Amino acid sequence: MPLTPEDAARSAHAHRLALDSLLMTDPNPRVGCVLTDAHGRILGTGHTQPVGGPHAEVMALRDAAAHGLSVEGATAYVTLEPCSHHGRTGPCCDALIAAGIRRVVASIADPNPLVGGNGFARLRAAGVDVEVGPGAVESRELNLGFFSRMVRRTPWVRMKTAASLDGKTALPNGASQWITGDAARTDGHAWRARASAVLTGVGTLIEDDPRLDVRGIETPRQPNLVIVDSRLQTPPGARLFDIPGRQVWIYAARRDEALAAALEAKGATVTVLANTDGKVDLAAMLRDLAMREVNELHVEAGHKLNGSLMREGLVDELLVYLAPKFLGDGFGMASQPHAGGPLTALADALALDFHSVDRFGPDLRILARVQGHDSF
Amino acid sequence: MPLTPEDAARSAHAHRLALDSLLMTDPNPRVGCVLTDAHGRILGTGHTQPVGGPHAEVMALRDAAAHGLSVEGATAYVTLEPCSHHGRTGPCCDALIAAGIRRVVASIADPNPLVGGNGFARLRAAGVDVEVGPGAVESRELNLGFFSRMVRRTPWVRMKTAASLDGKTALPNGASQWITGDAARTDGHAWRARASAVLTGVGTLIEDDPRLDVRGIETPRQPNLVIVDSRLQTPPGARLFDIPGRQVWIYAARRDEALAAALEAKGATVTVLANTDGKVDLAAMLRDLAMREVNELHVEAGHKLNGSLMREGLVDELLVYLAPKFLGDGFGMASQPHAGGPLTALADALALDFHSVDRFGPDLRILARVQGHDSF
Repeated sequence: MPLTPEDAARSAHAHRLALDSLLMTDPNPRVGCVLTDAHGRILGTGHTQPVGGPHAEVMALRDAAAHGLSVEGATAYVTLEPCSHHGRTGPCCDALIAAGIRRVVASIADPNPLVGGNGFARLRAAGVDVEVGPGAVESRELNLGFFSRMVRRTPWVRMKTAASLDGKTALPNGASQWITGDAARTDGHAWRARASAVLTGVGTLIEDDPRLDVRGIETPRQPNLVIVDSRLQTPPGARLFDIPGRQVWIYAARRDEALAAALEAKGATVTVLANTDGKVDLAAMLRDLAMREVNELHVEAGHKLNGSLMREGLVDELLVYLAPKFLGDGFGMASQPHAGGPLTALADALALDFHSVDRFGPDLRILARVQGHDSF
Repeated sequence: MPLTPEDAARSAHAHRLALDSLLMTDPNPRVGCVLTDAHGRILGTGHTQPVGGPHAEVMALRDAAAHGLSVEGATAYVTLEPCSHHGRTGPCCDALIAAGIRRVVASIADPNPLVGGNGFARLRAAGVDVEVGPGAVESRELNLGFFSRMVRRTPWVRMKTAASLDGKTALPNGASQWITGDAARTDGHAWRARASAVLTGVGTLIEDDPRLDVRGIETPRQPNLVIVDSRLQTPPGARLFDIPGRQVWIYAARRDEALAAALEAKGATVTVLANTDGKVDLAAMLRDLAMREVNELHVEAGHKLNGSLMREGLVDELLVYLAPKFLGDGFGMASQPHAGGPLTALADALALDFHSVDRFGPDLRILARVQGHDSF
């Protein structure tokens, strides 16, 4: 049965449900599901629950059952290919087949190269009609970190900065709190909340003793915390250890047993990954974070670590808050962001695309993507 | 007769006509006029013509006459108080009275403190009903430079820059052409076109030999050119002298007869206005430009002159094009923009308001106003 405008509308509905799960499903993808009968009436809806809980398809089936509605012969709209493997939960394909679903309209295939397509194949083998496509762009965008981890084996790296209109993030004396206003800061916390982990450098920790948790917005979980700390200078008494319910991963360039033990006693995991310069191997760190199931990595660091990440080509997008201020002198967003030192030709500049531009109170928020980085 | 929604709609129509005169009326204000009969039918429309030509009211009266329509008893909607004095043209008040106009709805009074209100008084003395107010904000905004010159006796100063997302206007080696794309550059020419004059510094002239004229868009006039050139280093062979139909005003800190004579031979006007540092007295220069009927001054200068103008509090708004690039190292928008050197507290930053944010091709355009500067 070919796709209809009705199918597109139902898929869009499923996508809205997926959006509702933005802050809860990590490290699983955000997925929504709508079940309809032959007349297009909605029988059940659902989205993926926190890790270990049911996926979207099972939630929608339960929703229909709770209303006493039969889904025999129904169509399931789901924003990602239903899973076919036994992970933390049973395979959704089996649940759909057992419930008598006759047709599945999925937005996009599972990006995991090991399992992608298996779900569709299992459904088709059971006689279910499968269509793929409506809402593919939106579903991938919503789960860009998950897709990045599955396909590239590295997280989607988002670098957040707050600057004046002239691109200064701090005064020459280091003062940087607060350049932007309340609305922008709250929005910044929303971006922290959707991330698998927040990354910072030990310099920021020592200077500001930040908590780097999510505050001011409701969230069912706190993102984990990553600290780039070549020499294990993170103070064991830092406020960041006061936040319950998250993991703290510290990456060092060499192991000092006493320092590591003090941090591990605070619950941190210390990993040593050095490059030939005796600094933390940032690319290897990202691969390690992907193995720890980090989808979206939210970077809130100083201009030096920002510069290192950019120089190594590891930043995928910039989340820039611009305040209506002019500072003139001060620190920029990233030091030496280009390999080989300062540019000598404009054509060599890091090329971005402005993905979105929005106002938050008196400030602007610009989301800029590094060209080519999302084509995986 | 009190104001009605119909009046607001007709005033908005007059404002649209005024917008059509954006590039032609300088140094006169941009004004539109709509004449309607007792049933609200339009009898004639018009806007102010290039300097020396008729004002909006006379154009509308002529339009009605050209269609054989009587304006006896009509209402005139006009976006600025009709003039009552003999300037380059006869007083519009007299023309309206002579034509039998019974009611005038004006957006706002003439900002010239010497003549403001005289037009309304003359109309009322002749028995014309006068209402003032609809479209006041829009008319003032459209003529902010004219209002500035009349009220503050100094032009409205707009500083244009093009930068990367991280606020860099040029690479460390000086390369700056072209940071932004075609659409942004064409828009920049539209802003030049509406200005009374474009200002630059001699450093930019020597480095880039720019023409600083309006290209790529149709314009009935070229803005005049202002050069800040303390030591009269402007090359008499510079390309800027090739542009016909505009004046070139050079401001120096001391007079060198031979250098001045060479520039005057090219048609330039050389004015010496020095401050105690032996540089051009920029505030005095602006007052002098206001006496030369400069309403909007469009600054396209390097970071040093930009910094001097900002440091002295002479910049009223920033027209910033941000390109989706990251340069990292390079020159900023303005050097040392704050009096007393680099800031030590964020609270001392120059406070702006983002007036508008728009996209031009891949670039962003941000118009930011210095807080308090438009409250005159």
